[in-house]
Amino acid sequence: MKLWSKSATSTSAQIEHFTVGRDKEFDVLLAPFDVAGNKAQAAMLAKVGLITDEENNQLQAALDIIYTEVQAPGFALPDDVEDIHSYVELLLTERIGEAGKKIHTGRSRNDQVAVDIKLFLRAQVQEVKTDTLKLFELLIKLSNQFKNHLLPGYTHLQMGMPSSFGLWLGAYAESLVDDLEMLAAAYSITNKNPLGSGAGYGSSFPLDREHTTASLEFGNLSWNSVYAQMSRGKTEKAVATGISYIAASLSKLAYDCCLYMNQNFGFIKFPNELTTGSSIMPHKKNPDVFELIRAKCNRIQSTPNELTLMINNLPSGYHRDMQLTKEILFPALEELKACISMMILMLENMSITENILEDDKYKYLFTVEAMNELVKSGLSYRDAYKTIGNAVDAGTFEKPQLDNLFALHTHQGSLGNLSNNKIQEALNIVLAKFN
Amino acid sequence: MKLWSKSATSTSAQIEHFTVGRDKEFDVLLAPFDVAGNKAQAAMLAKVGLITDEENNQLQAALDIIYTEVQAPGFALPDDVEDIHSYVELLLTERIGEAGKKIHTGRSRNDQVAVDIKLFLRAQVQEVKTDTLKLFELLIKLSNQFKNHLLPGYTHLQMGMPSSFGLWLGAYAESLVDDLEMLAAAYSITNKNPLGSGAGYGSSFPLDREHTTASLEFGNLSWNSVYAQMSRGKTEKAVATGISYIAASLSKLAYDCCLYMNQNFGFIKFPNELTTGSSIMPHKKNPDVFELIRAKCNRIQSTPNELTLMINNLPSGYHRDMQLTKEILFPALEELKACISMMILMLENMSITENILEDDKYKYLFTVEAMNELVKSGLSYRDAYKTIGNAVDAGTFEKPQLDNLFALHTHQGSLGNLSNNKIQEALNIVLAKFN
Amino acid sequence: MKLWSKSATSTSAQIEHFTVGRDKEFDVLLAPFDVAGNKAQAAMLAKVGLITDEENNQLQAALDIIYTEVQAPGFALPDDVEDIHSYVELLLTERIGEAGKKIHTGRSRNDQVAVDIKLFLRAQVQEVKTDTLKLFELLIKLSNQFKNHLLPGYTHLQMGMPSSFGLWLGAYAESLVDDLEMLAAAYSITNKNPLGSGAGYGSSFPLDREHTTASLEFGNLSWNSVYAQMSRGKTEKAVATGISYIAASLSKLAYDCCLYMNQNFGFIKFPNELTTGSSIMPHKKNPDVFELIRAKCNRIQSTPNELTLMINNLPSGYHRDMQLTKEILFPALEELKACISMMILMLENMSITENILEDDKYKYLFTVEAMNELVKSGLSYRDAYKTIGNAVDAGTFEKPQLDNLFALHTHQGSLGNLSNNKIQEALNIVLAKFN
Amino acid sequence: MKLWSKSATSTSAQIEHFTVGRDKEFDVLLAPFDVAGNKAQAAMLAKVGLITDEENNQLQAALDIIYTEVQAPGFALPDDVEDIHSYVELLLTERIGEAGKKIHTGRSRNDQVAVDIKLFLRAQVQEVKTDTLKLFELLIKLSNQFKNHLLPGYTHLQMGMPSSFGLWLGAYAESLVDDLEMLAAAYSITNKNPLGSGAGYGSSFPLDREHTTASLEFGNLSWNSVYAQMSRGKTEKAVATGISYIAASLSKLAYDCCLYMNQNFGFIKFPNELTTGSSIMPHKKNPDVFELIRAKCNRIQSTPNELTLMINNLPSGYHRDMQLTKEILFPALEELKACISMMILMLENMSITENILEDDKYKYLFTVEAMNELVKSGLSYRDAYKTIGNAVDAGTFEKPQLDNLFALHTHQGSLGNLSNNKIQEALNIVLAKFN
Repeated sequence: MKLWSKSATSTSAQIEHFTVGRDKEFDVLLAPFDVAGNKAQAAMLAKVGLITDEENNQLQAALDIIYTEVQAPGFALPDDVEDIHSYVELLLTERIGEAGKKIHTGRSRNDQVAVDIKLFLRAQVQEVKTDTLKLFELLIKLSNQFKNHLLPGYTHLQMGMPSSFGLWLGAYAESLVDDLEMLAAAYSITNKNPLGSGAGYGSSFPLDREHTTASLEFGNLSWNSVYAQMSRGKTEKAVATGISYIAASLSKLAYDCCLYMNQNFGFIKFPNELTTGSSIMPHKKNPDVFELIRAKCNRIQSTPNELTLMINNLPSGYHRDMQLTKEILFPALEELKACISMMILMLENMSITENILEDDKYKYLFTVEAMNELVKSGLSYRDAYKTIGNAVDAGTFEKPQLDNLFALHTHQGSLGNLSNNKIQEALNIVLAKFN
Repeated sequence: MKLWSKSATSTSAQIEHFTVGRDKEFDVLLAPFDVAGNKAQAAMLAKVGLITDEENNQLQAALDIIYTEVQAPGFALPDDVEDIHSYVELLLTERIGEAGKKIHTGRSRNDQVAVDIKLFLRAQVQEVKTDTLKLFELLIKLSNQFKNHLLPGYTHLQMGMPSSFGLWLGAYAESLVDDLEMLAAAYSITNKNPLGSGAGYGSSFPLDREHTTASLEFGNLSWNSVYAQMSRGKTEKAVATGISYIAASLSKLAYDCCLYMNQNFGFIKFPNELTTGSSIMPHKKNPDVFELIRAKCNRIQSTPNELTLMINNLPSGYHRDMQLTKEILFPALEELKACISMMILMLENMSITENILEDDKYKYLFTVEAMNELVKSGLSYRDAYKTIGNAVDAGTFEKPQLDNLFALHTHQGSLGNLSNNKIQEALNIVLAKFN
Repeated sequence: MKLWSKSATSTSAQIEHFTVGRDKEFDVLLAPFDVAGNKAQAAMLAKVGLITDEENNQLQAALDIIYTEVQAPGFALPDDVEDIHSYVELLLTERIGEAGKKIHTGRSRNDQVAVDIKLFLRAQVQEVKTDTLKLFELLIKLSNQFKNHLLPGYTHLQMGMPSSFGLWLGAYAESLVDDLEMLAAAYSITNKNPLGSGAGYGSSFPLDREHTTASLEFGNLSWNSVYAQMSRGKTEKAVATGISYIAASLSKLAYDCCLYMNQNFGFIKFPNELTTGSSIMPHKKNPDVFELIRAKCNRIQSTPNELTLMINNLPSGYHRDMQLTKEILFPALEELKACISMMILMLENMSITENILEDDKYKYLFTVEAMNELVKSGLSYRDAYKTIGNAVDAGTFEKPQLDNLFALHTHQGSLGNLSNNKIQEALNIVLAKFN
Repeated sequence: MKLWSKSATSTSAQIEHFTVGRDKEFDVLLAPFDVAGNKAQAAMLAKVGLITDEENNQLQAALDIIYTEVQAPGFALPDDVEDIHSYVELLLTERIGEAGKKIHTGRSRNDQVAVDIKLFLRAQVQEVKTDTLKLFELLIKLSNQFKNHLLPGYTHLQMGMPSSFGLWLGAYAESLVDDLEMLAAAYSITNKNPLGSGAGYGSSFPLDREHTTASLEFGNLSWNSVYAQMSRGKTEKAVATGISYIAASLSKLAYDCCLYMNQNFGFIKFPNELTTGSSIMPHKKNPDVFELIRAKCNRIQSTPNELTLMINNLPSGYHRDMQLTKEILFPALEELKACISMMILMLENMSITENILEDDKYKYLFTVEAMNELVKSGLSYRDAYKTIGNAVDAGTFEKPQLDNLFALHTHQGSLGNLSNNKIQEALNIVLAKFN
């Protein structure tokens, strides 16, 4: 017992430092949602008769003031306060006395934290959705703007067939639609009220959990009290999963941009101010922004696995481990929003190379076109394939004279028919799931 | 160039063995869906005039026969055939001649594989959903059946408050509802038609992709041809994500069961036939089934990360890497269905220990009850907390006489009000998303 | 180009904020190592004649002063300085003029950062090793101290055979020995000098890279310049891997402690001051410290995968993505050291329950003992197994009278022969690999 | 209890199918090592007097025969036998009677499996090491062979400075050296004898564990019996970690090859027989082999995380979950060996493009050379940087006339001084750790 007995004070400080971690930093983010949860709790307690209407009125008024205070710039938790939850209760007790002491009736810190996190994440998911829409709209706009500019299409990273800037940019717009499906599922999981589940086993107070659900505008309750606790960690993981899909699309687009900026490709360019130089190579204009979007989004893609490692193989019931999920998820949300914002900034300033495919090195992109023309003129598909293949092998293949590739490619989602309006319609269906 | 020049034949075989891998095994699973895709393709080609109605009729009839053949028990791909896609085309050409040679018009193996996988995964997701429902219903049934039997509720794995078998089992039922939200999102992503996107850049044939979408009963198209290819790998990951949530719930339930079967807990028991013995300890009845459900479900939880590692940081356009996603996902689907089935078998045979909380060692579970009684009798919450806390410290705390805990706990999701019907309603809302 | 043209200033600030991230915070940690790298660079430049001895002397003196300055408490990078590398060069130029301008000759920021990180991580690995040794020694001490106290041994979490506190604690000591094998491998990878590799392609200056290797006491060079750059990210991952093994042992020990503190087990206890209470349950003494050690160590275990996601599928050559590895690894190193420190504090204050196995509920732990006694008295193994098995099934099995289990278990690593001195010897072999 | 009571037989079959899984397939791989473990066990039992010398002789002779049998082509476990461990014991009992029944004395199936896996993995690690050496030697050979051929060096995937095929290939050779450090650590962890630890708590038999350690040529014992069991799962993870580093190098090299085969780069080529075609693009020669090496190696890189998810957050003591580690690791070992073999085949057949840098588009690669020439002619570094930078911006930069870049780059690890012999020396140091 040496260490302990010698120095109780320093040990306590050490323990506190270790257990509190970055919680106070995150509690500032949770503060307005904690107040909102308190307001719903107070109103419900009054409704079921556990406090008087007068007490409720006092609480509501005091909480409205606190709501403003915790959102003031520079707000931080006082040093001697354990967390935002006890701080709000403390302020209430200081300011309105007895009514403040009753606010915790039928509640545990567990369900209080749970409801704060659900409310916070629900708002964050909406923010991410809104930011993603901005990127979506820009991609559609640029896809339409550049729809008549060709680009080599690769498969196996080998020259394949003609593509276009319109197809390339529209593809990422459609990618975001599927990503939002996962985010919408996370939203549904987040949009459920755990308040009233106590420490995970409910209580003998006659709470009306549907009342707080309505006050807080949740879509539903986490009905079972044990499950309400089990959804800690799982909710965070669901949101991490949702944002990881958007991150995957951004990472991939950033990768494409790094490749297309490479001088061997040379398809796109950005103003010098958006690139960075080198300490030894005077000619360098590096795509640091895209590399960092990629790296940050790849890190975001690791968060679901990080959370699984943290919450997996724990029996049911609350464990303190859950508290650490905030350190993984909360910064990831900020990073994703920053990445979306930077991606928008970069794309708005992108200039494209015109007439890329006129370079003779791209002629083999047109073998399929040549083949299809033979088919249309009556040759069977297999004979056409052989004819062109032989020409390629013999080195006699010539790029066909195709006046307008865009007029020839007419089916849905092809060079001449991007179907961006249909992608917008698909988006609208997903957006409806966020209500 | 030694290795190569010496033995071209063996090298080719080595290359083929390496590149084909387990594909032929998985192609048997894809076979009926490949045939369905061919039928839709043929009908569309006839509709837009690329083949005649007569040719279409020949193709439909031949494909119907092949559909039966590939589903016969023991069906396997012939050794000299590359894959299911070329096999079907080969059979068609052998059996009906010219019409068979036209089936690949406006199609690439890329979009053919993509549509097969979408169709296969869509069916698999429905199967998993159906199996999950069976487990859900059993959990609800057992929750109701055991609702009057108490269980210790732990937080931090320390004795907390009274729980019940009803709460415990109902919690896992509700957990599956949220899991199905993620699976439904995967379903939406899967339920989109990539056929007609060719190698990822469309074609100059006047395909009607809405026609094949309707034939194959897809909910929508993957409109953009580049995105249709980008959804390879991503679709598999979405399904992996969906099933990983169900796996997480099973893993957690299996963990609880292992703990509750431990003799220091002793809450549940299973027939000898469902446990296993030891090579040296004659008294052992081990929970191998639960341990394996846990381990297998933990492996399933790793699949989204496995797929991310495989498909991440690849530029747009098809890469052969995508082909390996099958090796990760397809066995995982089988494993999950087996785990659900075994969980059902085990739970159906579970017997519970009665009157657990009557043992005096559990008396501290009742401190909150005692405290709440003081509050109800007029004491303030903080005074009540202190009174009971002092009694605990002094060793004088006695378990309160509570005639019926179930009558006292009345709020939604508590001991006396499990709200299982509300959980069923929540389930129904999610189920509607699978149509 | 709207956004950009309107507001160049705010855009630059946004770009800078995004690209710099937390680098300046980490650069403070790297600062002394950057100075050390500069000293070695200057000495080498003088040796090969690229600067004069006089210039070298000026540089060495100036760098010695800077070395003290950057380690002063509260040191931070000035706002208008890009990073520690340019800051040191700037100070040199300001203070000693021309010689300062020459320090970057034959060097790129890439190899400068690389050498800083190698030096920093090498020091960190040594710190982690030292801290791990403290925990090892405590575990051995406690293993010896509690060697005569029995504990139930579980397999499949079912009662198995008698174990002891000595065996349990010694096992974790030996676990750390294997963990240090992985850390030693990381040390070898870290202990190689990349300085002189420039931007990854060397230079036409006649550098003497063996000279800087000797000055900086590296074990070897990263010889190939391209590989020197490729080892960025990989080195960080190797260290992350090394510490993840130690984290795994701590996480597992913390899990055991949470379980053993549970009242159904009740094997160990800790002073109230090292546990935490509940906001609603007055009897609670929660193991938050162990839960947080577990959670933090589980997060550390995810870092190798995080880094893989970040650096994987990038072609050779430096990418800015590498810069983000610091955000993952540097905090993880701090967390691990904190976890080791807290684990030591907790174990030093642990009290154990005596005579646990005297409770009749543990009698089946002794079936193997009874069986072995029968074997020693002449019965065959299979007959003995059957005899005891039948007694168990009939409910007639009685715990055998075993005067001293410790005298009977004599082989290496058993109850009566913990072999802790041999484990210490195994440790010493691994420790030698850190030199 | 419906399912169970109806159909006991089918249930048992279902349970068995679920619990056995692919174990019998893997047991064939373990068979010779199981026999070796039995031989060591028998010799030790004789040495300590638990069996007679005569019995030992019988056992050794019988085991030698079984050793041959289990390695015969087509060997498989009989259907009615549970596993390889019971099969060997069964054969012994059938063939030599009483002595066979005594072989399990002082042993549990747990330590028997543990020793089999240690022996098997030790052999596998040696095989992987040997295969890796072959690749290393080829890379060094090709590095030397192509040392005078320049290649563009990229940073941020932007043109940077001149590199060479010699540097590029040598980098991967050196990368393997560091990878083998991790594999050597895994080897040390693997090379420890768990036999005699029983079910993880030792026994009262007077076993001589140092005797079996010597017989089986283990480097050391897993001394503590509890730790011997804890090393299950951890050993597998260590080997997975070791091979994942080699996989990372292969994946990266494969990525480079895919990029360099792309027509916009066009640095390397392979015979048609080692590439694959397309179903619709007659000009295609796809790098499927490299893509599959990359994908398979990326999957291998996920195995440590898979294993962590499986074994993490389990308290000490054996759990059946450990048995599933084989399904993850064993196929990964086969895959890695196949990938190494294919990489060797491909590289042996690689042809390189000569005189790449003579194309004017690569002229900016030479800015640093031009700058360094100015520095050597007396200009300060900063002035030289500005001079060349201005020329680049003005479009007047001309590629300098450099007669022989290789003569100018002389420091260790640069274009003219690859230091491949030093890399070989570094390798030899690591190889010594495998003994």
